[in-house]
Amino acid sequence: MSSEKSMTFGDAIDLSHHLSTLSRNRVPSPLKELQKYWGRPGIISLAGGLPSPEYFPFDAVKADGLFSSTFPATTAPQAKSTFSWLWDIFSASKVATTPITIPKFPEHSNDINLATYLQYSTAEGQPHLLKIVNELTTKVYKPAYANFQTMLHAGNTDGWLKAVNTLCNDGEGVLTDEWTYPSAIASMKPYGVNPVPVAMDGQGMSSIALREVLSSWDEKARRMPRPHVMYIVPVGQNPTGATMLSARKKEIYDICVEYDIIIVEDDPYYFMQEGPYVAPSRRTPCGTGRELGDEEYINSLAPSFLRFDYQGRVVRLDTFSKTIAPGCRLGWYTCNPLFAERLLRQAETSTQAPCGFGQSIVASLLIDWQYSGYLRWLKGLGSQYRLRRDFFIDCLASKFHLEFGSSVCNRFTGSLTYVAYSKLSRHGEKFVKKPLFSFMPPSSGMFVWLRFDFEGHPKVEELGPETLEKKLWIAMAEGGLLIGAGSIFAANPTDKTDGTVGHFRISFSNTEFDALKKAVDIMAQVLDKFYQDL
Amino acid sequence: MSSEKSMTFGDAIDLSHHLSTLSRNRVPSPLKELQKYWGRPGIISLAGGLPSPEYFPFDAVKADGLFSSTFPATTAPQAKSTFSWLWDIFSASKVATTPITIPKFPEHSNDINLATYLQYSTAEGQPHLLKIVNELTTKVYKPAYANFQTMLHAGNTDGWLKAVNTLCNDGEGVLTDEWTYPSAIASMKPYGVNPVPVAMDGQGMSSIALREVLSSWDEKARRMPRPHVMYIVPVGQNPTGATMLSARKKEIYDICVEYDIIIVEDDPYYFMQEGPYVAPSRRTPCGTGRELGDEEYINSLAPSFLRFDYQGRVVRLDTFSKTIAPGCRLGWYTCNPLFAERLLRQAETSTQAPCGFGQSIVASLLIDWQYSGYLRWLKGLGSQYRLRRDFFIDCLASKFHLEFGSSVCNRFTGSLTYVAYSKLSRHGEKFVKKPLFSFMPPSSGMFVWLRFDFEGHPKVEELGPETLEKKLWIAMAEGGLLIGAGSIFAANPTDKTDGTVGHFRISFSNTEFDALKKAVDIMAQVLDKFYQDL
Repeated sequence: MSSEKSMTFGDAIDLSHHLSTLSRNRVPSPLKELQKYWGRPGIISLAGGLPSPEYFPFDAVKADGLFSSTFPATTAPQAKSTFSWLWDIFSASKVATTPITIPKFPEHSNDINLATYLQYSTAEGQPHLLKIVNELTTKVYKPAYANFQTMLHAGNTDGWLKAVNTLCNDGEGVLTDEWTYPSAIASMKPYGVNPVPVAMDGQGMSSIALREVLSSWDEKARRMPRPHVMYIVPVGQNPTGATMLSARKKEIYDICVEYDIIIVEDDPYYFMQEGPYVAPSRRTPCGTGRELGDEEYINSLAPSFLRFDYQGRVVRLDTFSKTIAPGCRLGWYTCNPLFAERLLRQAETSTQAPCGFGQSIVASLLIDWQYSGYLRWLKGLGSQYRLRRDFFIDCLASKFHLEFGSSVCNRFTGSLTYVAYSKLSRHGEKFVKKPLFSFMPPSSGMFVWLRFDFEGHPKVEELGPETLEKKLWIAMAEGGLLIGAGSIFAANPTDKTDGTVGHFRISFSNTEFDALKKAVDIMAQVLDKFYQDL
Repeated sequence: MSSEKSMTFGDAIDLSHHLSTLSRNRVPSPLKELQKYWGRPGIISLAGGLPSPEYFPFDAVKADGLFSSTFPATTAPQAKSTFSWLWDIFSASKVATTPITIPKFPEHSNDINLATYLQYSTAEGQPHLLKIVNELTTKVYKPAYANFQTMLHAGNTDGWLKAVNTLCNDGEGVLTDEWTYPSAIASMKPYGVNPVPVAMDGQGMSSIALREVLSSWDEKARRMPRPHVMYIVPVGQNPTGATMLSARKKEIYDICVEYDIIIVEDDPYYFMQEGPYVAPSRRTPCGTGRELGDEEYINSLAPSFLRFDYQGRVVRLDTFSKTIAPGCRLGWYTCNPLFAERLLRQAETSTQAPCGFGQSIVASLLIDWQYSGYLRWLKGLGSQYRLRRDFFIDCLASKFHLEFGSSVCNRFTGSLTYVAYSKLSRHGEKFVKKPLFSFMPPSSGMFVWLRFDFEGHPKVEELGPETLEKKLWIAMAEGGLLIGAGSIFAANPTDKTDGTVGHFRISFSNTEFDALKKAVDIMAQVLDKFYQDL
């Protein structure tokens, strides 16, 4: 342990006043007394309500894991068509795999085995997987204090709800981005915990807007105390795709220190940092052909809030949903020991441990790959999503007339935005010059957030932007394209700030490339008709 | 659908007043509008935040499943040593298995595949598994109304917490057995929901005591409204091992109709119905040598509360923890459509779907086995636990002097109980005649509940039974045996009803037979010393 890391600020700063009444009411584990004897050699336990593993109806679980190097670590050079090699892999009848076997009983005492992983177990997770996520957290996120803790949870949505119950009381507010993950809001609202939206720009939450909200807080007018918890998706934000860089994170963290706020960092898209979008005409093979070294790769990523967290006020939610598979329902907390203990008590009385099949299979694959192999997999994944992001925006560029937007006419201050105009000419020159929508090509994640200013629409006064957004959504759906209507991502739907604007979230993550192309064709056709018909 | 089953009482009876404020506050799913278009042929979806399954790093998941006939369906006849064949199976280097393969992409559209099971999915569970649990519920539990619904959850502890949040408000009480599963209490208490213990006898909750509690309810004195929810473990009850038979269940159900109470039936030990214990001297091979037919087997089991549930007021919690493995974290609700919809909304904003690895592996095994094969597995499992139960109690009978207890001197009214006396003679005749403990051999489950009356202990007045229980627990642990101290199972630890009594829960489910025997030896030695030393 280095001298810097031996500082245990996570303990030294008293954060106990952030615990909710619900959380304080949780009783300590009744098993403590038992644990004193549990591991003793030769002791016979008839204490637990455990079925015999002899009766688990599996002799072994196996998996064919992909190689960590399955996907190129970098975007392929231009020489070859940008994504043609992708088809090579999946048109082959069989990808190369590495065999994973989890036996019922271990050959060596520390081996992953079904008798242990399919048994009742500690809610924080099995040691093999805990060790792996702890190593990842330490090496990749580099928390600014030493005694942080990691423990498994059943996916970030569950992780977030447990954080709400640990930190928030009925009648309190949580600071959120003005556009955010709907399930996060839907999770907390029934408990009487309401979102307090903060305005965003091209990097997500604005530090200026955050300070404004906090410094001008009027408890009486707002009918709630000043929030002491923040929920934030800082990379490839859902739904806007915004990514917050180092300087902004430091600003936000410092404000949270000043106003004593706990930051819950929900970061599922962290390893989908694709880098800036470059138009095809200016895209060169330089700089994309060499695989980054591990430390170089880590340094190329926007840092986690943990990197600035010298006080232990960040609860980070990591998940394997985007890097392995969503069906794992497997992720982990990184937070201070005080919160970790309360979260563990909560898991014990609800989800208990994440599924043992998932834990054992994921842990086995990661052990097979090793730390550096997992980073290799993540590099490949990032490149894959970069290809998808580039391809989708290239399609937009080919189907619409794109121009750089000025920073005045859009919300994405300081970021490169495009304004899309129709390429169809039959509306006459005047209409064609009207912008259809604007967007910021995301540097991370899987979403493109389209901003429609219906100002020029003939019926905007009559119908309003919300109805137009809905009509356009239905028109797209009837045309054969499903996208996300912006309104469902509003942290507070009644909190309208812009009179003629609607939004759509488009996900480029899970469709064949030809379907992505077809989707943009549909968009162009439907938009054309939409402005004709209404 | 038969004419009897077409009655949809679960809808016709209005149970909406049972929903908690929290549950009412949950918003409907925002995906409803999407679902209208979701399945349309040819439609392109860029709406979901789904990663591409091409990037799930598994080409296949496989398992070696045991045959459903791995264990004999009945207790082996006496001709062979009662459990010697058990060693035969596990001393063999390899058990016979059936290969299970879950490919990444389906060969036929309805096949179980990783691309679907490892993706985000509906929180109620994947169709294959839903169909299986629905068939089981219909054929085994035979609910008394037609439109019951089944949906998956992440194990009964999580299922119970979700039921609490759906049904109970802060400040309310829940009727429970006086001794019960500690996690169930620990789950609800932080939400301000407190247990209201009801006295038990040999069949678990007493209907007489239940009526007494309800009819004499004094809201002011109790400082809470009369409970409208019951939590009950009716088979192989944890910790007492009690099993409630048909007539008692009908009585309890009718009282719940009269007082408008929702019954949450947590029934993990349902298929561990081992039948009555018969002393070795009177044990005969007759009646245990023939495998029961499926319907005969089902009829031999104590019915679920669902069988009487003509009003849809039962929320049944089933789990695969004891029949497959606890690490599955997989079970299911059976309840009326109103509650099912609210529970689904709750799952969507917390755990989402249970783990896809677990769902796919368990579903594949059950599809391989088929319905009748699963019943065959359950018959074998029941026989296995019968062997264990018999073996453990045989050990008690050989190490202690057992006599039938009179129904007057114990709490297990109407049930066969044993009183255990020391076989050691050096204390002199007088002391030997003092009973050490009494117990009712359980007909189900994995627990034996020992009742110690410390009345005859020299220091009972000085120390009290709670301290003696703890001292005895420590003495056992120091002697090399861990068992469950009764006090941790008290629904309300401050609610003392008996001045000189302590309890211990012993689990015979997960220890080698020679260790079970050794455990009883330790018990005898420690008890001997315990009465000497103090």
